[in-house]
Amino acid sequence: MNFAIVRYIIGWILQFEAAFLLLPTLTGFIYHEKNEVIAFLVSAMICFIVGLALRIRRPASMVLYVRDGFTSVALGWLALSLFGAIPFVLTGDIPNYIDALFETISGFTTTGASIINDVEVLSRAGLFWRSFTHWIGGMGVFVFIMAIVPMAGGSSMNLMRAESPGPSVGKLVPRVKDSAKVLYELYLCLTILEIVVLLICGMPLFDTVTLTFGTVGTGGFGVLNSSIASYSPLIQVVITVFMILSGINYTVYFCFIRRQFKAAFSIEEVRWYLLIILGSALLITWNISSLYGSLGESARYAFFQVGSIITTTGFSTADFDLWPEFSKTILVILMFIGACSGSTGGGIKVSRILMLLKALKKELFMLIHPRMVKKLRLDGHIISHETIRSTNVYIFVYMMILLGSVFVVSLDNFGFTTNFTGVVSMLNNIGPGLDLVGPARNFSLFSPLSKCVLMFDMLAGRLELFPVLVLLVPSCWKKY
Amino acid sequence: MNFAIVRYIIGWILQFEAAFLLLPTLTGFIYHEKNEVIAFLVSAMICFIVGLALRIRRPASMVLYVRDGFTSVALGWLALSLFGAIPFVLTGDIPNYIDALFETISGFTTTGASIINDVEVLSRAGLFWRSFTHWIGGMGVFVFIMAIVPMAGGSSMNLMRAESPGPSVGKLVPRVKDSAKVLYELYLCLTILEIVVLLICGMPLFDTVTLTFGTVGTGGFGVLNSSIASYSPLIQVVITVFMILSGINYTVYFCFIRRQFKAAFSIEEVRWYLLIILGSALLITWNISSLYGSLGESARYAFFQVGSIITTTGFSTADFDLWPEFSKTILVILMFIGACSGSTGGGIKVSRILMLLKALKKELFMLIHPRMVKKLRLDGHIISHETIRSTNVYIFVYMMILLGSVFVVSLDNFGFTTNFTGVVSMLNNIGPGLDLVGPARNFSLFSPLSKCVLMFDMLAGRLELFPVLVLLVPSCWKKY
Repeated sequence: MNFAIVRYIIGWILQFEAAFLLLPTLTGFIYHEKNEVIAFLVSAMICFIVGLALRIRRPASMVLYVRDGFTSVALGWLALSLFGAIPFVLTGDIPNYIDALFETISGFTTTGASIINDVEVLSRAGLFWRSFTHWIGGMGVFVFIMAIVPMAGGSSMNLMRAESPGPSVGKLVPRVKDSAKVLYELYLCLTILEIVVLLICGMPLFDTVTLTFGTVGTGGFGVLNSSIASYSPLIQVVITVFMILSGINYTVYFCFIRRQFKAAFSIEEVRWYLLIILGSALLITWNISSLYGSLGESARYAFFQVGSIITTTGFSTADFDLWPEFSKTILVILMFIGACSGSTGGGIKVSRILMLLKALKKELFMLIHPRMVKKLRLDGHIISHETIRSTNVYIFVYMMILLGSVFVVSLDNFGFTTNFTGVVSMLNNIGPGLDLVGPARNFSLFSPLSKCVLMFDMLAGRLELFPVLVLLVPSCWKKY
Repeated sequence: MNFAIVRYIIGWILQFEAAFLLLPTLTGFIYHEKNEVIAFLVSAMICFIVGLALRIRRPASMVLYVRDGFTSVALGWLALSLFGAIPFVLTGDIPNYIDALFETISGFTTTGASIINDVEVLSRAGLFWRSFTHWIGGMGVFVFIMAIVPMAGGSSMNLMRAESPGPSVGKLVPRVKDSAKVLYELYLCLTILEIVVLLICGMPLFDTVTLTFGTVGTGGFGVLNSSIASYSPLIQVVITVFMILSGINYTVYFCFIRRQFKAAFSIEEVRWYLLIILGSALLITWNISSLYGSLGESARYAFFQVGSIITTTGFSTADFDLWPEFSKTILVILMFIGACSGSTGGGIKVSRILMLLKALKKELFMLIHPRMVKKLRLDGHIISHETIRSTNVYIFVYMMILLGSVFVVSLDNFGFTTNFTGVVSMLNNIGPGLDLVGPARNFSLFSPLSKCVLMFDMLAGRLELFPVLVLLVPSCWKKY
């Protein structure tokens, strides 16, 4: 590991976090929460000072190799969470540090799983910070830094590769720095658009802002105990639409801006993503129709929940744990699939699954026609062996971490459904699972050991496994 | 598809099945079960005549390509099951044909999952046939045929590749025909050895023979409703040992016979297999120690169940569904792992997991040291890219079939634990799952649709997915 550069980057991260913490401070100020203002100011100062101490000596070389990109991102996210949890403890919103850390990691990784039984008693500043972590984590803090801080040639690419969701990094424009900027601009546009629409629909400003952070970041923290259930049907529909929009590959929006409409509509991943949503929601509508008054109501619940789960947001308008098993199973399968690559959503990603299905089709084809040569293509481009290999390794690691986590969590002696869907929900950054971790419950029941495993899962899921795993290889910690 | 050769091979299979059916006929004769004797004789005659009709015209060419090997094996196993279910219906042991087919497929695939609520009322002939299907399916009916029927050059290899468990076919001796013979000789030795030991331990002859079929074939059908629980502790220990021996790569025994002891002990897969058994059993012993009188008793239950699940046999001496969640989770993870390749056991196989772990280690190593070149080795031999790729595809297909099956089965509206562990149990040819398909229950509760899905899973699992999947590709059915 190139300790100097990793230290330097973490310093930057913490100083940005100090800046981010000023927003909840302002919120506390507006709502006359004196203690909270002090707590958030102190937290911001801690971040600033530690960040400064780490950043004050510039490393001799600013070149960042792939391995350093991975370790910087993993350790950077860890630092972000460790320091981001401090205000929750200081304000007394979440007095236990392990719980505060769980909540913060859940926020930054856009999971949205909570250990809080009653969110409505939290301070406004705390609620704002909780949701704001979604917004920061959604597009990625490194992407943010890259858009602003100058770096050596390939360095930003190596950071972006480690942080961005999806099997391959789609550069929108030739320079990574500019791509990062464009991504954040689009992200900001979507955020503002949703805030405006929700305000028009009559939602209070505070709820509008926090829920928008949760939606466009595909996070899932709400400000009411009932998540989205107590808002009007119109608002629920609006949030459904924005959740689904947030799970789409941002390349689509970029194409729209450039008026390349044909290119926008030809992205296979997005077409499949929308098709899966439509199919799943219709099946669930049919399956739950006897539970609700009308087919329209069932459809509203179904589309909301399908959109919420496949984009890995995790909002809910109904306790889907009470739905028939068929609907629940569809939701569990959607948890695995996840959103599009290049979006703020988590999960395995539609493009990975598409790629592997194509690889499978080729494998079967080759058994029948052994002498034919066939290239795998996605959106017309040939998929490299490299990409397929790492995608395959990804699936295997994913399975290993999933089963390993269920193994440790089972020590708490809850049922298999709780453990399995809980871990799947964490690893895919969704939020709710089934049974004891269903949408009407939370994760406070787990032991500290299980919470640590679940925190690892959330980080591993958000950073797509490898950056976190690299840290576990001893030779990664050797200085060079 | 080369229809002529597939037809010819299925003809052979059915004629062999006719011969196999004479053994339960003999059993019925010994136990004075007149109706059963007639039923089994009639079934044997049907098999013989249909087999003869299919086999009477020899195909022009006896050369078998890979694709034909795959389709022959898949369709051969289907034919074997379709006809093997007839006697159960004729004797009235299982009047419903779908149920009889489920039981037969469960037998041939060495799953051991039953739809019978009370096995003790079945006829002796029926019980014998039920267990004998384990023995036939364990080593494989095609391996059996190859040991006897002469075939063109690479043809037997292509059949063996499709039927034998494991990522690569380990030829014990240069000629496939001879390898098949050696395998069956070893299989027979192990069978006779267990029968002798169990007789010495005082088990009745009928139980000895049927349970030995279930053990060495890693099947799991018993002749008592309590599976193995009501036999003496000594017998339970003996069966534990033979289950574990049956899950070992047969290459070990071959090396023993040739006095290549060093080679026998150096097989990585076997060492890991034994280590996993030891580790899991010790953890479960600790976890269930409060449930049983002594640590010795807990250990006996733990080793039996671990041996039973990892070898995918499925016998039980205790209702492990009542054990703490930690022990149950260990068993579920063992279901995925499975036995050694080149044994009669099912599951993903220890060698596949070893290979993928090595591939993962290499992937992480390459992220840290991008310029180093590293070859993957298993037992000192380099693992080809081909093998790793197909293993990767295997894992992905496995996951797809698993989730897809849970999806369909969930229409029956049982709980997630039941559906998930039930499908995992079928796909890995184990037998029991958890909750409603736990060791004290059976699969009779599922709808005919679910049973069909589970039957598909059992066949797909036993033939290691690809032969069954190839049948689903339309171009496979084109004549050439």
